[in-house]
Amino acid sequence: MSDPASKNTRRRIESGDLAVPRTEISLSDGSTFSTYETWGPEGHSPTDGLPSRRAEWTARRVERGDTNFSQMHCARKGEITEEMAFVAAREGCSPELVRDELARGRAIIPANINHPELEPMIIGQKFKVKVNANIGNSAVSSSIDEEVEKLQWAVRWGADTVMDLSTGKNIKETREWILRNSPVPIGTVPIYEALEKVGGVVEDLTIEAYLETLEEQAQQGVSYFTIHAGVLLRAIPLTVKRTCGIVSRGGSIMAKWCLAHHQENFLYTHFDAICEVMKKYDVAFSLGDGLRPGSIADANDDAQFFELEVLGELTKRAWEHDIQVMIEGPGHVPMHKIAENVERQMRVCHEAPFYTLGPLATDIAPGYDHITSAIGAAIIAQHGTAMLCYVTPKEHLGLPDKDDVKQGMIAYKIAAHSADLAKGHPGAQERDNTLSKARFEFRWEDQFNLGLDPDTARAFHDETLPHEGAKVAHFCSMCGPAFCAYRISQEVNELATGPEFTQLGNPHAETQPEAPTAASPDTLSRDQLDEEMKKKAEEFRAGGGEIYVPVRGNTSS
Amino acid sequence: MSDPASKNTRRRIESGDLAVPRTEISLSDGSTFSTYETWGPEGHSPTDGLPSRRAEWTARRVERGDTNFSQMHCARKGEITEEMAFVAAREGCSPELVRDELARGRAIIPANINHPELEPMIIGQKFKVKVNANIGNSAVSSSIDEEVEKLQWAVRWGADTVMDLSTGKNIKETREWILRNSPVPIGTVPIYEALEKVGGVVEDLTIEAYLETLEEQAQQGVSYFTIHAGVLLRAIPLTVKRTCGIVSRGGSIMAKWCLAHHQENFLYTHFDAICEVMKKYDVAFSLGDGLRPGSIADANDDAQFFELEVLGELTKRAWEHDIQVMIEGPGHVPMHKIAENVERQMRVCHEAPFYTLGPLATDIAPGYDHITSAIGAAIIAQHGTAMLCYVTPKEHLGLPDKDDVKQGMIAYKIAAHSADLAKGHPGAQERDNTLSKARFEFRWEDQFNLGLDPDTARAFHDETLPHEGAKVAHFCSMCGPAFCAYRISQEVNELATGPEFTQLGNPHAETQPEAPTAASPDTLSRDQLDEEMKKKAEEFRAGGGEIYVPVRGNTSS
Repeated sequence: MSDPASKNTRRRIESGDLAVPRTEISLSDGSTFSTYETWGPEGHSPTDGLPSRRAEWTARRVERGDTNFSQMHCARKGEITEEMAFVAAREGCSPELVRDELARGRAIIPANINHPELEPMIIGQKFKVKVNANIGNSAVSSSIDEEVEKLQWAVRWGADTVMDLSTGKNIKETREWILRNSPVPIGTVPIYEALEKVGGVVEDLTIEAYLETLEEQAQQGVSYFTIHAGVLLRAIPLTVKRTCGIVSRGGSIMAKWCLAHHQENFLYTHFDAICEVMKKYDVAFSLGDGLRPGSIADANDDAQFFELEVLGELTKRAWEHDIQVMIEGPGHVPMHKIAENVERQMRVCHEAPFYTLGPLATDIAPGYDHITSAIGAAIIAQHGTAMLCYVTPKEHLGLPDKDDVKQGMIAYKIAAHSADLAKGHPGAQERDNTLSKARFEFRWEDQFNLGLDPDTARAFHDETLPHEGAKVAHFCSMCGPAFCAYRISQEVNELATGPEFTQLGNPHAETQPEAPTAASPDTLSRDQLDEEMKKKAEEFRAGGGEIYVPVRGNTSS
Repeated sequence: MSDPASKNTRRRIESGDLAVPRTEISLSDGSTFSTYETWGPEGHSPTDGLPSRRAEWTARRVERGDTNFSQMHCARKGEITEEMAFVAAREGCSPELVRDELARGRAIIPANINHPELEPMIIGQKFKVKVNANIGNSAVSSSIDEEVEKLQWAVRWGADTVMDLSTGKNIKETREWILRNSPVPIGTVPIYEALEKVGGVVEDLTIEAYLETLEEQAQQGVSYFTIHAGVLLRAIPLTVKRTCGIVSRGGSIMAKWCLAHHQENFLYTHFDAICEVMKKYDVAFSLGDGLRPGSIADANDDAQFFELEVLGELTKRAWEHDIQVMIEGPGHVPMHKIAENVERQMRVCHEAPFYTLGPLATDIAPGYDHITSAIGAAIIAQHGTAMLCYVTPKEHLGLPDKDDVKQGMIAYKIAAHSADLAKGHPGAQERDNTLSKARFEFRWEDQFNLGLDPDTARAFHDETLPHEGAKVAHFCSMCGPAFCAYRISQEVNELATGPEFTQLGNPHAETQPEAPTAASPDTLSRDQLDEEMKKKAEEFRAGGGEIYVPVRGNTSS
């Protein structure tokens, strides 16, 4: 990416017939380190939009007479689509695994046929944990330009999908600009626009207005819809005793509608009609958690779990149409209640991918909810949640700006990657190992460049040690040259690999601490060992007692 | 605290004969909410220092002829000291629990008799999880004034203890200023100053120089010493194969000394002499984890666990002198390896309190290690770790400044409190509940003031809605007035408590969604119920469809 401060150490590479993208990070020894990448092709103008990479793939399916374009449908027919091959290459796994996970509903590739610009990605517990960023205006804030900028900023920082949650002006136009410029799938909550259609009067919502909205948004290219079809009339009283009632916009809207009409939720009663729209375009369900807990006190309550059961029923119904499904989840959940959420969801919703908002592990830190929720998010992803919806520092306080989007994204890439490590996801630990090796060897630029935010890491280092020489220094301002543990440890390594140490024997042996026992015929005797060690100690001191070991990548002492 | 931006809503209150402090947060209805508080008395000048609240308590023990002043010693004699009564009042538990936990070594009250200014606090798994902040200069950075300011800043943000890790100039003077102004126990790593005494030459360290340093620091009033007595000669080769060798300053210093002299670690071989110094002043051991893992790759390796076994042995030896002990821990540990750390430590170290540095759940985010480690810290505390040593955004990059201290403190108060919640610590959830209730009722000022950082929460809110009226508004810029879920939810609550809903029956009953079954003789018939509901719906619409429910604390609609 052309980012001068990063000194052109990150490049986007596309490989193979499908032009599968990755990032290559250049290291100081000339090697490169590859990472998964989301920011998409560069150099186009927003008015032109991105290249339509998928148009041909879809055109072929239209030509052969497909009427159900869903990736699940293709997978269940035994087919490996271009999208499946693409994500397999991105994930470093086999296309067969992708197909099988799609067929059983344990993963989804949200990829509306009318969003040909997107680079396919997969959401499922067997793949890297993904992160969604929310953008979108409200009546009180933001413009189209700002929202497109936020999109590009969010994918720059690693957003795997982006939801456009606009509730203000120009919802449709904003979304068009976003879609045509987005390399990632876009999700929406159609009830917002449907509400706008009926002049903002909740009671005037109808299934007709809603289906019309779905059709329009699907035609534009939205790849998944959050649909609060699980908010049933009879569950609404369960929320009255809560500390925070209903905290979901869509959930509160549907609850109000139900009460105003004394009728069941029309999203539930007309679910099949909704399915008919979605399957034409391969739009996936994100079955909304309208009754999610919005405070620690409400976590895991009966309202929340009642809705989960309904979502399980709706999952099966969607799968009868081969429509892809993921399940939305909480919210605010203290750490000891997190595992139960995943266990229930997996069982009740037939292992459909789980997509949670955090959860926040405590309520007490407004202004820092990217951190309170990164804790819960890491844990819930470790247990199997496939995608995390980010939370920014502005949560509960106002609409996020660009910096909030970045802070939220970094916190959530941390949570997602921590979960990948904890799950033993193949290859996940390579980045940690490569960065830590660079750190220990004082290859500062490599350490920065391998991190999630190289410019910030570099700037933090430079606050106290800005001069170029510091980038090969064997210390930083935390400890200074005399006390740097890594520097001292390098010396220790050199000394501790001499013969007198390889023959120290089993460190766990129950012998007195000072002298080793002779373990085998070819070891030195105790006296000989003492002699060797004394000699080594003298060498060490004679050499100045500061044996400087040049390591790979350093050119000066 | 006199903090104009907080509008004087937080006051420090001292209660009872022992003047036990707490914070009271004033809420909009005139009530107050109490929280644990660390920032100490106000209004003194740094040159005067804090009042010597404990001087009398200690004087009485000197008069009666005590030679071992350790709180553990007193507890084992069945005594409840003023310190024990003080912490019991702070923690909201019985003094007997405190005494029993101290006697069995599962908790410590670090309280050097020569630090009479400190307000006693307890570290143990049965009490609130505590947080330590590190301050201190290095050869490259910082001055005495800055370090005292950092101390005051750290306790302002909730630090329960502070470690002075200075390695630069004026170590002793800096420490004196810190101690005389600190309401919290101070910890140090004496090997740093001992090294300064021998001109910075590691090989010239001697037990004599070290004991001299211990005596001086203990006389000044340091309440706990980090001592790397577990770094044994024969374990050092185990670190050579690591990605990051030895990352502990003290650990690397002792390892180098061992290799230079081909001798066992003098801190281990002279452990009893060290104990004799510490028991005179009631200084506690913080048995150092010199071989802790400094990267994900090194987590839970044989070097780390070898040292843990030695620390277990040393714990027993210290307890023979009734010297209080806590055990330091990692480091860098992926989430799935965290539980094992606590399980081993509890078993091997006889349940002595665990005091971990994070751990970081991933290495890939330099610049954000307060977040990578808040994740691991929350989890390890949930499992029983008693105190967490904070990590700032500057970790691995340079010495932290004031803002870094604040960011690290907030991240760690979040981690500690999340763990308290997950452990079901009595009373912990009150703050979350009270804040969430304020949030749901749009009592914005109450929400801000109950949070960890009221000024930041307020400022974030005001970025988009600065005018005073917004502080009683039933929305914010996230969603705007029409889409605010809490606002809509308030209306839903009002409607859903009418009789037609309390008679909807069991929401889990397997009936068709639209109509309830008559459950008992005194319920309305189905027709009557429909009639009631239609009437209610008409009332709702006739009333404008926007039933505004005034809630406590709001004065305008």
